[in-house]
Amino acid sequence: MDTTSHQDFSAGAAYVGGTFMPIGQASISITDWGFLRSDATYDVVTVWDGAFFRLDAHLERFAASCRSLRLDIGLAPQAITDILHECVRLSGLRASYVEMIATRGQPPWGSRDPRQAVNQFYAFAVPYVWIANEAQRQQGLHVHVSDVQRIPPASVDPRVKNYHWNDLTMGLLGALDAGFDTVVLSDGDGNVVEGPGFNVFCVNAAGTLVTPLEGVLEGITRRTVIEMAQALALPLEQRALPAAELCAAREVFLTSSGGGVLPVTRIDGTPVGDGRVGPLTRRLTETYWAWHRDARYSTPVRYGA
Amino acid sequence: MDTTSHQDFSAGAAYVGGTFMPIGQASISITDWGFLRSDATYDVVTVWDGAFFRLDAHLERFAASCRSLRLDIGLAPQAITDILHECVRLSGLRASYVEMIATRGQPPWGSRDPRQAVNQFYAFAVPYVWIANEAQRQQGLHVHVSDVQRIPPASVDPRVKNYHWNDLTMGLLGALDAGFDTVVLSDGDGNVVEGPGFNVFCVNAAGTLVTPLEGVLEGITRRTVIEMAQALALPLEQRALPAAELCAAREVFLTSSGGGVLPVTRIDGTPVGDGRVGPLTRRLTETYWAWHRDARYSTPVRYGA
Ligand SMILES: Cc1ncc(COP(=O)(O)O)c(C=O)c1O
Ligand SMILES: Cc1ncc(COP(=O)(O)O)c(C=O)c1O
Repeated sequence: MDTTSHQDFSAGAAYVGGTFMPIGQASISITDWGFLRSDATYDVVTVWDGAFFRLDAHLERFAASCRSLRLDIGLAPQAITDILHECVRLSGLRASYVEMIATRGQPPWGSRDPRQAVNQFYAFAVPYVWIANEAQRQQGLHVHVSDVQRIPPASVDPRVKNYHWNDLTMGLLGALDAGFDTVVLSDGDGNVVEGPGFNVFCVNAAGTLVTPLEGVLEGITRRTVIEMAQALALPLEQRALPAAELCAAREVFLTSSGGGVLPVTRIDGTPVGDGRVGPLTRRLTETYWAWHRDARYSTPVRYGA
Repeated sequence: MDTTSHQDFSAGAAYVGGTFMPIGQASISITDWGFLRSDATYDVVTVWDGAFFRLDAHLERFAASCRSLRLDIGLAPQAITDILHECVRLSGLRASYVEMIATRGQPPWGSRDPRQAVNQFYAFAVPYVWIANEAQRQQGLHVHVSDVQRIPPASVDPRVKNYHWNDLTMGLLGALDAGFDTVVLSDGDGNVVEGPGFNVFCVNAAGTLVTPLEGVLEGITRRTVIEMAQALALPLEQRALPAAELCAAREVFLTSSGGGVLPVTRIDGTPVGDGRVGPLTRRLTETYWAWHRDARYSTPVRYGA
């Protein structure tokens, strides 16, 4: 029974409760603890030029997040893959931001026991999302290092991709009000960690790539940069990154599925290096997009289905 | 145009997008940042014996939370009040758990700026929720003090009632698995703070009521206990509450709109005091329910409308 053929999926397609629908119709029950307790995990994989980028890595991270939260959506990776293909196919998008979501669902009325809930799966494909607009990608972002502390790992495991974003949102609001483009949060101990939707890297004064190790999501783009650095024989360290080291760096960039490698050229009013997008940032950006054409990382969307 | 008259609201009634509907139909857009970033605040007021308890206090806290998150739902307290009355009236419930919610909504597609979003308001009334079942209320709860740290105030302001519950949920799962009834989280510094849906009090070895001051929601039930202690001339301190002091206390109880004053008689396997519900806990429980009949705190639901 094909009820999808007369609908307009051009703004995006979603999968909710076993059914595909235009994104504008997609909703979740107000009583799902995924909303009422943000008891949920998710992952975002992108489609570029008609192909998923590193789909396996995203599916693996999603499965690990579900295990960690003890969410069982009863779908094998292949079943999830099929749903994601279908969302993108319906949308017809060649460049897409594809989100898969697992929520706690809801236990029987009156119960407060998460173990009694029926877990839920949702997915959607919408047009590709950029963390930085075109001008920002050309000239580099102006970033604020905020006093707001990222929720610490002792409270919420940051490797389990989650919607606990109040710290990121309040930090972002402060930064936008003050005229910055975006924000990086700290760990309360003088180190920077991550920002709203991205990891952070610098090329420090010694020429070494540095990215925070603790208190951050293990971003797939971050992993891609680490692997590119290996392939290009660039020295790289994963460790605590003091804000002072970031501010004194030659180059700074952000990494996100929402745009790949994104240059930062000013921090709190001060230019990074000479204030222009640096050579390593450029090289990694080019390699990032080149890897999208590499069959090892690329899965063509089944548009013809 | 009355479309509600043929619907069954007995399981609860919700207000979504300007319309009242049975709770089972109530949903929020999957792209609302209230879900995708848990960018939301809420409040819960209860109805007991056909009357709201301390409705004004809940409306004031909700308004303060909205201001803090810079959410503007464009509704005066009176308009919210009318919606809550109507939800309860439609449900016909004489004992109800009534939730009001403000979410960020969604900025125009492609924007990552929370200031461009159109904020949303939701509400629902469902049957009264008890944090503890009847046996637990009679004999007292068995509580686990968890190593999971409550999200600290430097990351998320706990006085802004929020859905960032992963720490509470993971702590609760660990406690339930180990056979406890519920969990209290700590601040990472040896003090207890709060649990999933409640504040914590003890009557310490010196006979003084103590409840944590920092790192907790300013619960309306907590406030009610503080005011009852004043009225009953009981000594009370709001300050850091070391886990060791809690475990050595004569009496321990939890406070929540989901049940009022709830006795704790064991902590991590050890009886609190003589292991029975203590006299002050009983007195405060009785006073709590007596205050529900006090016109100062009570607003009869307009069932007849
Ligand atoms: C908090 C946070 N950190 C880092 C990232 C980057 O991860 P990825 O490269 O997998 O997109 C994201 C992505 O949304 C994120 O939300
Ligand atoms: C984290 C937390 N602390 C405390 C409370 C108790 O607050 P109140 O007495 O207003 O219900 C709640 C209520 O849901 C809560 O969620």
